[in-house]
Amino acid sequence: MVVTRWVDLRSDTVTKPTEAMRAAMAKAEVDDDVLGFDPTALKLEKEMAKITGKEAALFVPSGTMGNLISVLTHCDVRGSEVILGHNSHIHIYENGGISTIGGVHPRTVLNNKDGTMDINLIEAAIRDPAFEICYPTTKLICLENSHCNAGGRCISVDYIDKVGELAKKHGLKLHIDGARIFNASTALGIPVDRLVQAADSVSICLSKGLGAPVGSVIVGSKSFIAKAKILRKTLGGGMRQIGVLCAAALVALQDNVGKLEDDHKKAKTLAEGLDRINGLKLDVAAVETNIANHLRYCFYCDQVYLDILESSNLNAPKLCKALERHGILVMEDKPYRVRFALHHQISAADVQFTLSCIQQVVNEASDENGASP
Amino acid sequence: MVVTRWVDLRSDTVTKPTEAMRAAMAKAEVDDDVLGFDPTALKLEKEMAKITGKEAALFVPSGTMGNLISVLTHCDVRGSEVILGHNSHIHIYENGGISTIGGVHPRTVLNNKDGTMDINLIEAAIRDPAFEICYPTTKLICLENSHCNAGGRCISVDYIDKVGELAKKHGLKLHIDGARIFNASTALGIPVDRLVQAADSVSICLSKGLGAPVGSVIVGSKSFIAKAKILRKTLGGGMRQIGVLCAAALVALQDNVGKLEDDHKKAKTLAEGLDRINGLKLDVAAVETNIANHLRYCFYCDQVYLDILESSNLNAPKLCKALERHGILVMEDKPYRVRFALHHQISAADVQFTLSCIQQVVNEASDENGASP
Amino acid sequence: MVVTRWVDLRSDTVTKPTEAMRAAMAKAEVDDDVLGFDPTALKLEKEMAKITGKEAALFVPSGTMGNLISVLTHCDVRGSEVILGHNSHIHIYENGGISTIGGVHPRTVLNNKDGTMDINLIEAAIRDPAFEICYPTTKLICLENSHCNAGGRCISVDYIDKVGELAKKHGLKLHIDGARIFNASTALGIPVDRLVQAADSVSICLSKGLGAPVGSVIVGSKSFIAKAKILRKTLGGGMRQIGVLCAAALVALQDNVGKLEDDHKKAKTLAEGLDRINGLKLDVAAVETNIANHLRYCFYCDQVYLDILESSNLNAPKLCKALERHGILVMEDKPYRVRFALHHQISAADVQFTLSCIQQVVNEASDENGASP
Amino acid sequence: MVVTRWVDLRSDTVTKPTEAMRAAMAKAEVDDDVLGFDPTALKLEKEMAKITGKEAALFVPSGTMGNLISVLTHCDVRGSEVILGHNSHIHIYENGGISTIGGVHPRTVLNNKDGTMDINLIEAAIRDPAFEICYPTTKLICLENSHCNAGGRCISVDYIDKVGELAKKHGLKLHIDGARIFNASTALGIPVDRLVQAADSVSICLSKGLGAPVGSVIVGSKSFIAKAKILRKTLGGGMRQIGVLCAAALVALQDNVGKLEDDHKKAKTLAEGLDRINGLKLDVAAVETNIANHLRYCFYCDQVYLDILESSNLNAPKLCKALERHGILVMEDKPYRVRFALHHQISAADVQFTLSCIQQVVNEASDENGASP
Repeated sequence: MVVTRWVDLRSDTVTKPTEAMRAAMAKAEVDDDVLGFDPTALKLEKEMAKITGKEAALFVPSGTMGNLISVLTHCDVRGSEVILGHNSHIHIYENGGISTIGGVHPRTVLNNKDGTMDINLIEAAIRDPAFEICYPTTKLICLENSHCNAGGRCISVDYIDKVGELAKKHGLKLHIDGARIFNASTALGIPVDRLVQAADSVSICLSKGLGAPVGSVIVGSKSFIAKAKILRKTLGGGMRQIGVLCAAALVALQDNVGKLEDDHKKAKTLAEGLDRINGLKLDVAAVETNIANHLRYCFYCDQVYLDILESSNLNAPKLCKALERHGILVMEDKPYRVRFALHHQISAADVQFTLSCIQQVVNEASDENGASP
Repeated sequence: MVVTRWVDLRSDTVTKPTEAMRAAMAKAEVDDDVLGFDPTALKLEKEMAKITGKEAALFVPSGTMGNLISVLTHCDVRGSEVILGHNSHIHIYENGGISTIGGVHPRTVLNNKDGTMDINLIEAAIRDPAFEICYPTTKLICLENSHCNAGGRCISVDYIDKVGELAKKHGLKLHIDGARIFNASTALGIPVDRLVQAADSVSICLSKGLGAPVGSVIVGSKSFIAKAKILRKTLGGGMRQIGVLCAAALVALQDNVGKLEDDHKKAKTLAEGLDRINGLKLDVAAVETNIANHLRYCFYCDQVYLDILESSNLNAPKLCKALERHGILVMEDKPYRVRFALHHQISAADVQFTLSCIQQVVNEASDENGASP
Repeated sequence: MVVTRWVDLRSDTVTKPTEAMRAAMAKAEVDDDVLGFDPTALKLEKEMAKITGKEAALFVPSGTMGNLISVLTHCDVRGSEVILGHNSHIHIYENGGISTIGGVHPRTVLNNKDGTMDINLIEAAIRDPAFEICYPTTKLICLENSHCNAGGRCISVDYIDKVGELAKKHGLKLHIDGARIFNASTALGIPVDRLVQAADSVSICLSKGLGAPVGSVIVGSKSFIAKAKILRKTLGGGMRQIGVLCAAALVALQDNVGKLEDDHKKAKTLAEGLDRINGLKLDVAAVETNIANHLRYCFYCDQVYLDILESSNLNAPKLCKALERHGILVMEDKPYRVRFALHHQISAADVQFTLSCIQQVVNEASDENGASP
Repeated sequence: MVVTRWVDLRSDTVTKPTEAMRAAMAKAEVDDDVLGFDPTALKLEKEMAKITGKEAALFVPSGTMGNLISVLTHCDVRGSEVILGHNSHIHIYENGGISTIGGVHPRTVLNNKDGTMDINLIEAAIRDPAFEICYPTTKLICLENSHCNAGGRCISVDYIDKVGELAKKHGLKLHIDGARIFNASTALGIPVDRLVQAADSVSICLSKGLGAPVGSVIVGSKSFIAKAKILRKTLGGGMRQIGVLCAAALVALQDNVGKLEDDHKKAKTLAEGLDRINGLKLDVAAVETNIANHLRYCFYCDQVYLDILESSNLNAPKLCKALERHGILVMEDKPYRVRFALHHQISAADVQFTLSCIQQVVNEASDENGASP
């Protein structure tokens, strides 16, 4: 089978720069940003500060560096502890860098299925300074919005505000891993600046849903960003003529934020379609108790997680390989789990094509299954 | 009220050296242990290696250093992760040193009420090397026996063996925080060497139940101890004529291990006595769901945790202060929780005296309570 | 005075991307490099591996990250020490990141005026493993070529080979900070692969003399690069569609390496011109003993350091400000020292213009000086 | 040859506790020092604060921990740098712990032969905050008095005061590694409190010249010691009934400080005797230029370094082995260098015996030498 059309659903990080972005890169006004003079970087940072309602912003090479710098800047004194979700991106997917590179001790609190943590559990995890002789010092609480490992679910502004109050009460800072904060803002219908109002810092990816080729931005107070800039240099994230990247990001902000709503709709369409395949029902109750036995989807925002029925004669590697033959790229998450990420370069027709191919793969597997002794 | 007799139940670390220990210290044969020549240290280390069935042993200033060295020695490569109980002593009470000093990333697994962690949860927490691009590297599993925050409950040899097998299967090391491993051994009726057979390293306190004035010992393979010795020097735990301390510890091994069974009995007597005070019942079911509403005790080993009824007109600081006037010293754990630790310098009469004083304090509080509008 | 033409001599990092680079960025073939699929990144890495004669290469956001990753990868075990020049870029200008982020202990050896370190001093600095009880473990030697703080002087291939032999003899690795290795190669007339033959790793800047907008590359063995890639992710240097940057770098390799010789000539012209200004002589002997009393230049490669006579009524800030009014940008290094960096976007006419402006500034200062009492 | 009398000159750390110390340990009043209640520890700490003229003091297990805690407490923010001698004990003999455990970046300044560093070099090493984007932040200067690797030479109070002024001028702290500060005080005839007046912290060994079995003390302001106490716990230096060790230290302060003057005299006698052996002359000028060709001694304080003539047919291992057969223990420092450390348990007769044995060993080696072709 010769693939004539590729549908890349591996991640929302796989988008290619649009023609408008390429044109913007080609004519970007630039200077040396390590020296602090790149005009396009300054323009992007100003724009991001405005969108998020913060004093200042800083372009960084990646979301991982955005979170790492933010946590380390808030936890700049040896002996600091950060409270974060046990299933958060920082804890699970960022190499443990806050400890292994930054010497910050993580204290995890159980993430609920919706990505939140019970506020009383957060409060219980805050260290009592009276026992500083044997405790690290709690300095920071981290939230994640939308929450990747919760299937891209969004945290409400009410919840964030409450965590912000708790942080203030205990003299702590609040950081939001907002890699997909524009998705959350779109899905919740709350402007980004309102959504992150309670946060002392936010890291935001330009290269996920927004579709820019490279980069993230962190935002916060002027003094926070001043410290963050030094740490960016220390980590090796200070770059020269980054105007070429920032120009593309400015196009992304202009052109792609508005497309996120459509991405979410396509995700829902895909999820509903998957639910109908082969008569499989989405059994919510069952999902709550035994995720491995049923197809499952979360269609918050732009991600769909598909759990494969063990009896289906399929597993994640098999399904991925079969789909690749059809030109459809998806990402294995676990042996029986596959992630589909929607983004602006996936059309409604791509979704339908994907559904029909999956239907076909499931049918074939089922036939094999039936044929096996 | 003039106190004529003190009953010190704050911790099993408060014991005073016995006359035999003092005599041993006074005549200890010593040399410079940093140079590796202190004969009494060598004797103690040989003895501890024998008792635990390991190749070698090392005297260290404290249990915290014992655990810190052990974790850091197993996790000597940048990017290492350790799996340990969310309520373990290392995670809660050791200043987060494994991260803040050692750069090791902790991955916590929920401790059950008995101090164990579900073995399938441990296995799920082990990082898949296939995702090393964004994962830290799991290197070590830690258990704690007896488990302090589980009220001194003991982990069975079967369980430890199973975790040991899991570790081996995944190429990981197993460390046991055995600060009170002699208590566990006594309570379970299993020799220490059998109990820690599956472990690659164990840290054992000499200054808790055993009653020595200072020190802990870590045990493991010769190569592990050789590395640990260098790290002990780095951390500042290399000391000179430690024979004076090791001589006392040798007396402790000789004289006090056999007394632990009696400590456990006294703990049980105390707990049962507390349960009878003022007609309060120990309601096990309630304890499971709402620890704040009932007196509670765990009388595994040598520790009794007392939760104070909020309606009792008492709280932890009040109770501690009142008992201190009777010459009884106990430790606040939380606003409504008090810990009693038994040890060989508490007599059966001390236990009875303590019970009668608590009865009196509770009565007085109750009277006040009744009198309040 | 309205500036109509800017001459930017602050650094060789200030170059703007050429039209060819911009065109290449605009049409670059890209994919997600974190997933490992960006074709242009793979092409650049392959090319750099070939040029340097190493097995593999990795694009990183900056020279600082290139050095940081290299040092940390060679020193991946806690307790490692690196030997490097007391005046090296890593030790002086990279925020101390190898210690503050990486926990590596630096052992400095005196840099000679030419950027080398005496080989017997290097050998004396290697720790004797027999004293590991109180020593860190030497793992790595770092050289820098060309050597920035030695005024861009080049280290010979003979010297590097000898250090390489020494490293091998003691089981150490050799890293070269080759931010300007192409300058060194050009000035020495030795191909890059020969020049770094003895090195286990090299970091090379694309955004200095080569004129690419962003990035560095590290090269080494396959296993070194595999580890480096994980650490790049940990530090936050993993980026998405970096093909846009790598495309510009490929143009730089194609178009700009050949221009370096000319940059060096322009540097020499500038230095000689400075030497003639106002009848000031370059007194080499005096330079050896008292650098503050004479104008000084080093015209190895592409950098000229100008020391200002204290009696000239000028200092670095004054000179810089005065030159800026003429549209000439230079960099203060110390109160009486200014650095001029040549690069491919400075023409011969720019050099002459710069000389005439400096002549004018010096004359004016001298006049003021004469007028003062 | 049966050894009937041992002369232990390996180090001043090898002293055995005196009978008075043993008696004091045996009857020491103790409590749990981690809880903060050990009365003998409190007494020692109060005494040391008084002797040094500082607000507060803290007992720690070792000099290495004393220095490590001090440096890390002053450098508690990520990105800190410490200025210290290139030949200082902290830099050379403490495993690089300030970096490998503490993440502090060391900036070394050349030690002069007398243990000082040129004050203008120290000032030049202080980082200009204007370049914080690429510099670590200087926080601390460390001195060492007496200076071990300078042969136990003493730093004058004038010099220390000047460094103290420099530190104050730049907002830095000053730490003194005063492992042998009592030796320095005795040799200089300056009281300890005056000698360390300019210092923000001092670490002082009890187990070197003072002859206590175990421990060091750090002194400084109340707030410094409060932070140090937490870090002592983190590192594992919090110990329980340390009154037994502190009681011995109190005896050392009482009985042994006065003996240091005599130790210094014995060192001088030994050095002068060595100088006369076999007609070898101590050629001071030659020592300045080529230490390997002559016997050399430094008899500041209590240490004598002997460099062995390469043509003598002896080297350090040979000499040590030969002396051991006579019951004399000394320490190899380098292949041709041996250290003799005097202390209160070495008598005048021991010194004479040592000299006669060395004479004999040198004669024998010389004979062998003559006999060889």
